[in-house]
Amino acid sequence: MKHRIITIGREFGSGGRTIGREVAAKLGIHCYDQELIAKMAEESGFTPDYVEKESENVTLNSWAASALSIDQGGFYAMPTNQDQLWLIQSRIICELAEKESCVIVGRCADTILEERADLLKVFIHADFEARAKRIVEKYGETEVPTEDRLREKDKRRAMYYQFYTDRKWGAIENYHVILDSGVLGLDKCVEIISSLY
Amino acid sequence: MKHRIITIGREFGSGGRTIGREVAAKLGIHCYDQELIAKMAEESGFTPDYVEKESENVTLNSWAASALSIDQGGFYAMPTNQDQLWLIQSRIICELAEKESCVIVGRCADTILEERADLLKVFIHADFEARAKRIVEKYGETEVPTEDRLREKDKRRAMYYQFYTDRKWGAIENYHVILDSGVLGLDKCVEIISSLY
Repeated sequence: MKHRIITIGREFGSGGRTIGREVAAKLGIHCYDQELIAKMAEESGFTPDYVEKESENVTLNSWAASALSIDQGGFYAMPTNQDQLWLIQSRIICELAEKESCVIVGRCADTILEERADLLKVFIHADFEARAKRIVEKYGETEVPTEDRLREKDKRRAMYYQFYTDRKWGAIENYHVILDSGVLGLDKCVEIISSLY
Repeated sequence: MKHRIITIGREFGSGGRTIGREVAAKLGIHCYDQELIAKMAEESGFTPDYVEKESENVTLNSWAASALSIDQGGFYAMPTNQDQLWLIQSRIICELAEKESCVIVGRCADTILEERADLLKVFIHADFEARAKRIVEKYGETEVPTEDRLREKDKRRAMYYQFYTDRKWGAIENYHVILDSGVLGLDKCVEIISSLY
């Protein structure tokens, strides 16, 4: 099977974003990550900062959830800003995949593009120590303990993924290739993923 | 990091055993799978058939579980045959890893050898259709529906793994490389794993 679109889900601090960029550079295709934020901001009218913050958040009375539920006594909640961003994001991701070969980091792209036969779904993880080391090197120390930063971010990603896809983030059945970047190293991950394109 | 011992966990019908044998053949090292059964039979005095059947079973009043529990009112259950096989299996696997580079399929070898820095932990899975197709091709049809055969075998493996290792079988944090053999194909899995040796 030919894999033309590569999606990369990743635990915070696992280096998944860097791996995605390096795979794309090696293959001579685009990597969409921050570029998606800019596109979503443009289409939605929100600022890029707002999009970045809200597009991994979940509001529990969200429209997407209530739209799935038939019996609401005739009452449907209005779509939240997050729901609007989800719809814009889904449309942008589908359009990109239709138009060009690319790497897409995060944003539930694996589920959004699931029906495509040319999709390779990757997930990157690493143990706690490796990720803690990486985020301190990359983003520096903050007032919040490293452990809490990792847990908080992963929890948000997991909730967001589960909420909009109805699947478990990081569960093996959702991915074709799952790599431990802490043990294998980033370069080896890039090599394996590129070899599957 | 140098990976000298490769353990392969696998869903039933995913081709993990075949992948293990081909990786070992490619690398010129041994693959332990049925050979382990023979060694366990020799050491335990049970027949190979009995070992094969019982070494993936769990008896819930097992000694291994009660040995972990301090407060049993002075009463400890006797080790079951499965517990004895578990201890023999653990010792054989540790001795093999000490003695030679090898591939070990199944048998919780990933957890038994966990402390080794030269260990590569692999898990192979595939979607339901791919596995159903494979087991019918390989083992033929039986009176038991294919779906039930897959579920039953995976359930046994998951219970056995969880019981003796206290971990979740197939959970991403327990493996360095997880591959979908249905989508990637067996040859590609062999190539990726071999490249990490």
